[in-house]
Amino acid sequence: MSDTQRASLLLAHGSSDPLWLEPFNHLLAQIRDQLKDSGSRVEMAYMELAEPSMTGQIRTLAAEGIRHIDVLPLFFAAGRHLRKDVPAMIEAVQQELASEGHILEINLHKPVGLEPEVASAISQVVIRQVR
Amino acid sequence: MSDTQRASLLLAHGSSDPLWLEPFNHLLAQIRDQLKDSGSRVEMAYMELAEPSMTGQIRTLAAEGIRHIDVLPLFFAAGRHLRKDVPAMIEAVQQELASEGHILEINLHKPVGLEPEVASAISQVVIRQVR
Repeated sequence: MSDTQRASLLLAHGSSDPLWLEPFNHLLAQIRDQLKDSGSRVEMAYMELAEPSMTGQIRTLAAEGIRHIDVLPLFFAAGRHLRKDVPAMIEAVQQELASEGHILEINLHKPVGLEPEVASAISQVVIRQVR
Repeated sequence: MSDTQRASLLLAHGSSDPLWLEPFNHLLAQIRDQLKDSGSRVEMAYMELAEPSMTGQIRTLAAEGIRHIDVLPLFFAAGRHLRKDVPAMIEAVQQELASEGHILEINLHKPVGLEPEVASAISQVVIRQVR
Protein backbone atom coordinates (compact mmCIF):
# COMPACT_ATOMS: atom_id res chain seq x y z
CA MET A 1 0.00 0.00 0.00
CA SER A 2 1.64 3.20 -1.06
CA ASP A 3 1.67 6.32 1.04
CA THR A 4 1.45 9.30 -1.30
CA GLN A 5 2.98 11.57 1.34
CA ARG A 6 6.12 9.42 1.66
CA ALA A 7 9.19 9.18 -0.57
CA SER A 8 12.68 7.72 -0.40
CA LEU A 9 15.73 9.59 -1.58
CA LEU A 10 18.82 7.62 -2.55
CA LEU A 11 21.77 9.81 -1.68
CA ALA A 12 25.19 9.41 -3.31
CA HIS A 13 28.22 11.63 -2.85
CA GLY A 14 28.20 13.07 -6.38
CA SER A 15 30.94 13.79 -8.87
CA SER A 16 31.55 16.22 -11.69
CA ASP A 17 32.26 13.17 -13.87
CA PRO A 18 29.09 11.95 -15.66
CA LEU A 19 30.56 8.44 -15.91
CA TRP A 20 30.61 8.24 -12.11
CA LEU A 21 26.87 8.91 -12.04
CA GLU A 22 25.89 6.14 -14.47
CA PRO A 23 25.83 3.19 -12.06
CA PHE A 24 23.58 5.17 -9.70
CA ASN A 25 21.07 5.82 -12.47
CA HIS A 26 21.19 2.14 -13.32
CA LEU A 27 20.64 1.23 -9.66
CA LEU A 28 17.70 3.63 -9.42
CA ALA A 29 16.10 2.11 -12.53
CA GLN A 30 16.59 -1.41 -11.13
CA ILE A 31 15.08 -0.46 -7.76
CA ARG A 32 12.12 1.32 -9.35
CA ASP A 33 11.48 -1.68 -11.54
CA GLN A 34 11.39 -3.99 -8.54
CA LEU A 35 9.13 -1.61 -6.64
CA LYS A 36 6.79 -0.75 -9.51
CA ASP A 37 3.80 -2.60 -8.07
CA SER A 38 4.21 -1.09 -4.61
CA GLY A 39 3.57 2.51 -5.59
CA SER A 40 6.60 3.52 -3.53
CA ARG A 41 8.32 6.63 -4.73
CA VAL A 42 12.13 6.57 -4.99
CA GLU A 43 14.28 9.41 -6.26
CA MET A 44 18.04 9.93 -6.67
CA ALA A 45 20.02 12.82 -5.22
CA TYR A 46 23.65 13.86 -4.86
CA MET A 47 25.25 15.58 -1.89
CA GLU A 48 27.52 17.71 -4.04
CA LEU A 49 29.03 18.17 -7.51
CA ALA A 50 26.06 16.71 -9.39
CA GLU A 51 22.38 17.25 -10.02
CA PRO A 52 19.77 16.64 -8.77
CA SER A 53 21.01 17.91 -5.44
CA MET A 54 19.67 16.56 -2.16
CA THR A 55 18.21 19.88 -1.05
CA GLY A 56 16.70 20.46 -4.52
CA GLN A 57 15.02 17.06 -4.43
CA ILE A 58 13.70 17.66 -0.90
CA ARG A 59 12.21 20.99 -2.04
CA THR A 60 10.65 19.36 -5.12
CA LEU A 61 9.13 16.56 -3.06
CA ALA A 62 7.79 19.03 -0.47
CA ALA A 63 6.17 21.09 -3.23
CA GLU A 64 4.48 17.93 -4.50
CA GLY A 65 2.92 17.20 -1.12
CA ILE A 66 5.45 14.72 0.31
CA ARG A 67 5.67 14.96 4.11
CA HIS A 68 7.98 12.06 5.04
CA ILE A 69 11.33 11.48 3.35
CA ASP A 70 13.70 8.60 4.02
CA VAL A 71 17.21 9.53 2.95
CA LEU A 72 19.14 6.34 2.13
CA PRO A 73 22.88 7.03 1.75
CA LEU A 74 24.70 5.03 -0.91
CA PHE A 75 27.97 5.44 0.97
CA PHE A 76 30.41 2.82 2.23
CA ALA A 77 30.82 4.45 5.63
CA ALA A 78 29.65 7.31 7.80
CA GLY A 79 32.31 9.98 7.96
CA ARG A 80 32.11 13.72 8.27
CA HIS A 81 29.73 14.00 5.29
CA LEU A 82 27.05 11.77 6.81
CA ARG A 83 27.61 12.71 10.44
CA LYS A 84 27.83 16.48 9.98
CA ASP A 85 27.42 17.95 6.48
CA VAL A 86 24.31 16.06 5.38
CA PRO A 87 22.42 16.44 8.72
CA ALA A 88 23.20 20.19 8.63
CA MET A 89 21.96 20.46 5.04
CA ILE A 90 18.78 18.57 5.95
CA GLU A 91 18.14 20.74 9.00
CA ALA A 92 18.64 23.94 6.98
CA VAL A 93 16.23 22.94 4.21
CA GLN A 94 13.73 21.65 6.77
CA GLN A 95 13.77 25.04 8.51
CA GLU A 96 13.39 26.91 5.24
CA LEU A 97 10.48 24.71 4.22
CA ALA A 98 8.86 25.06 7.65
CA SER A 99 8.98 28.84 7.28
CA GLU A 100 7.07 28.35 4.01
CA GLY A 101 4.47 26.19 5.74
CA HIS A 102 5.81 22.77 4.73
CA ILE A 103 6.48 20.59 7.78
CA LEU A 104 8.62 17.63 6.69
CA GLU A 105 9.81 14.60 8.60
CA ILE A 106 13.17 13.53 7.16
CA ASN A 107 14.95 10.39 8.36
CA LEU A 108 18.61 9.95 7.49
CA HIS A 109 19.38 6.23 7.48
CA LYS A 110 22.77 4.61 7.98
CA PRO A 111 24.93 4.07 4.90
CA VAL A 112 24.12 1.06 2.76
CA GLY A 113 27.75 -0.11 3.00
CA LEU A 114 27.26 -0.86 6.70
CA GLU A 115 24.43 -3.28 5.99
CA PRO A 116 25.62 -6.88 6.43
CA GLU A 117 24.37 -8.01 2.97
CA VAL A 118 26.39 -5.33 1.21
CA ALA A 119 29.53 -5.83 3.31
CA SER A 120 29.25 -9.57 2.70
CA ALA A 121 28.81 -9.11 -1.08
CA ILE A 122 31.91 -6.89 -1.15
CA SER A 123 33.91 -9.52 0.78
CA GLN A 124 32.79 -12.26 -1.58
CA VAL A 125 33.74 -10.26 -4.69
CA VAL A 126 37.16 -9.43 -3.23
CA ILE A 127 37.82 -13.03 -2.20
CA ARG A 128 36.94 -14.23 -5.69
CA GLN A 129 39.34 -11.67 -7.20
CA VAL A 130 42.16 -12.48 -4.77
CA ARG A 131 41.99 -16.26 -5.14
CA MET B 1 48.70 -22.27 -3.41
CA SER B 2 50.02 -18.87 -2.50
CA ASP B 3 52.31 -16.84 -4.69
CA THR B 4 54.74 -14.99 -2.43
CA GLN B 5 55.41 -12.42 -5.16
CA ARG B 6 51.73 -11.46 -5.47
CA ALA B 7 49.54 -9.25 -3.27
CA SER B 8 46.14 -7.58 -3.42
CA LEU B 9 45.58 -4.02 -2.34
CA LEU B 10 42.08 -2.95 -1.36
CA LEU B 11 41.78 0.68 -2.33
CA ALA B 12 39.27 3.04 -0.73
CA HIS B 13 38.95 6.77 -1.30
CA GLY B 14 40.09 7.79 2.18
CA SER B 15 38.86 10.42 4.62
CA SER B 16 40.33 12.54 7.35
CA ASP B 17 37.59 11.14 9.61
CA PRO B 18 38.76 8.01 11.49
CA LEU B 19 35.16 6.82 11.81
CA TRP B 20 34.95 6.62 8.02
CA LEU B 21 37.89 4.23 7.97
CA GLU B 22 36.49 1.75 10.50
CA PRO B 23 34.26 -0.29 8.17
CA PHE B 24 37.20 -0.77 5.80
CA ASN B 25 39.38 -2.14 8.57
CA HIS B 26 36.54 -4.44 9.53
CA LEU B 27 36.16 -5.56 5.91
CA LEU B 28 39.90 -6.21 5.63
CA ALA B 29 39.85 -8.33 8.80
CA GLN B 30 36.85 -10.31 7.50
CA ILE B 31 38.51 -10.93 4.13
CA ARG B 32 41.83 -11.94 5.70
CA ASP B 33 40.01 -14.33 8.00
CA GLN B 34 38.27 -16.00 5.06
CA LEU B 35 41.54 -16.20 3.12
CA LYS B 36 43.74 -17.31 5.99
CA ASP B 37 44.29 -20.82 4.65
CA SER B 38 45.12 -19.62 1.14
CA GLY B 39 48.28 -17.72 2.04
CA SER B 40 47.02 -14.82 -0.11
CA ARG B 41 48.26 -11.44 0.99
CA VAL B 42 45.72 -8.62 1.19
CA GLU B 43 46.47 -5.10 2.35
CA MET B 44 44.39 -1.92 2.70
CA ALA B 45 45.26 1.44 1.14
CA TYR B 46 43.65 4.84 0.71
CA MET B 47 43.84 7.08 -2.33
CA GLU B 48 43.99 10.26 -0.28
CA LEU B 49 43.41 11.81 3.17
CA ALA B 50 44.28 8.66 5.13
CA GLU B 51 47.11 6.26 5.78
CA PRO B 52 48.34 3.84 4.58
CA SER B 53 48.45 5.54 1.20
CA MET B 54 48.26 3.54 -2.02
CA THR B 55 51.71 4.58 -3.20
CA GLY B 56 53.19 3.94 0.27
CA GLN B 57 51.72 0.43 0.29
CA ILE B 58 53.00 -0.28 -3.23
CA ARG B 59 56.50 0.81 -2.17
CA THR B 60 56.34 -1.35 0.97
CA LEU B 61 55.18 -4.38 -0.99
CA ALA B 62 57.89 -3.85 -3.64
CA ALA B 63 60.55 -3.63 -0.92
CA GLU B 64 59.30 -6.95 0.47
CA GLY B 65 59.71 -8.70 -2.87
CA ILE B 66 56.19 -8.47 -4.25
CA ARG B 67 56.15 -8.23 -8.05
CA HIS B 68 52.44 -8.43 -8.95
CA ILE B 69 49.83 -6.24 -7.28
CA ASP B 70 46.08 -6.37 -7.89
CA VAL B 71 44.50 -3.08 -6.89
CA LEU B 72 40.83 -3.69 -6.00
CA PRO B 73 38.91 -0.40 -5.69
CA LEU B 74 36.25 -0.26 -2.99
CA PHE B 75 34.39 2.41 -4.93
CA PHE B 76 30.80 2.50 -6.16
CA ALA B 77 31.70 3.78 -9.62
CA ALA B 78 34.61 4.71 -11.84
CA GLY B 79 34.86 8.47 -12.12
CA ARG B 80 37.81 10.76 -12.53
CA HIS B 81 39.62 9.23 -9.53
CA LEU B 82 39.69 5.71 -10.94
CA ARG B 83 39.97 6.63 -14.59
CA LYS B 84 42.67 9.30 -14.27
CA ASP B 85 44.10 10.05 -10.81
CA VAL B 86 44.74 6.49 -9.60
CA PRO B 87 46.22 5.22 -12.92
CA ALA B 88 48.53 8.28 -12.96
CA MET B 89 49.62 7.62 -9.35
CA ILE B 90 50.25 3.96 -10.18
CA GLU B 91 52.26 4.82 -13.27
CA ALA B 92 54.38 7.34 -11.36
CA VAL B 93 55.24 4.95 -8.53
CA GLN B 94 55.88 2.14 -11.02
CA GLN B 95 58.40 4.35 -12.86
CA GLU B 96 60.11 5.39 -9.62
CA LEU B 97 60.37 1.77 -8.50
CA ALA B 98 61.65 0.70 -11.93
CA SER B 99 64.42 3.27 -11.67
CA GLU B 100 65.35 1.61 -8.36
CA GLY B 101 65.40 -1.81 -10.01
CA HIS B 102 61.94 -3.03 -8.91
CA ILE B 103 59.83 -4.03 -11.89
CA LEU B 104 56.19 -4.35 -10.77
CA GLU B 105 53.09 -5.48 -12.60
CA ILE B 106 50.10 -3.61 -11.18
CA ASN B 107 46.55 -4.36 -12.28
CA LEU B 108 43.83 -1.88 -11.47
CA HIS B 109 40.52 -3.73 -11.35
CA LYS B 110 37.07 -2.26 -11.86
CA PRO B 111 35.29 -0.88 -8.78
CA VAL B 112 33.58 -3.41 -6.54
CA GLY B 113 30.31 -1.45 -6.80
CA LEU B 114 30.02 -2.41 -10.47
CA GLU B 115 30.07 -6.12 -9.66
CA PRO B 116 26.56 -7.59 -10.00
CA GLU B 117 26.57 -9.18 -6.50
CA VAL B 118 27.30 -5.83 -4.84
CA ALA B 119 24.82 -3.87 -6.97
CA SER B 120 22.20 -6.50 -6.24
CA ALA B 121 22.88 -6.43 -2.47
CA ILE B 122 22.52 -2.64 -2.51
CA SER B 123 19.20 -2.91 -4.38
CA GLN B 124 17.90 -5.47 -1.93
CA VAL B 125 18.82 -3.36 1.09
CA VAL B 126 17.19 -0.28 -0.43
CA ILE B 127 14.03 -2.18 -1.37
CA ARG B 128 13.73 -3.53 2.18
CA GLN B 129 14.11 0.01 3.57
CA VAL B 130 11.63 1.53 1.13
CA ARG B 131 8.86 -1.04 1.60
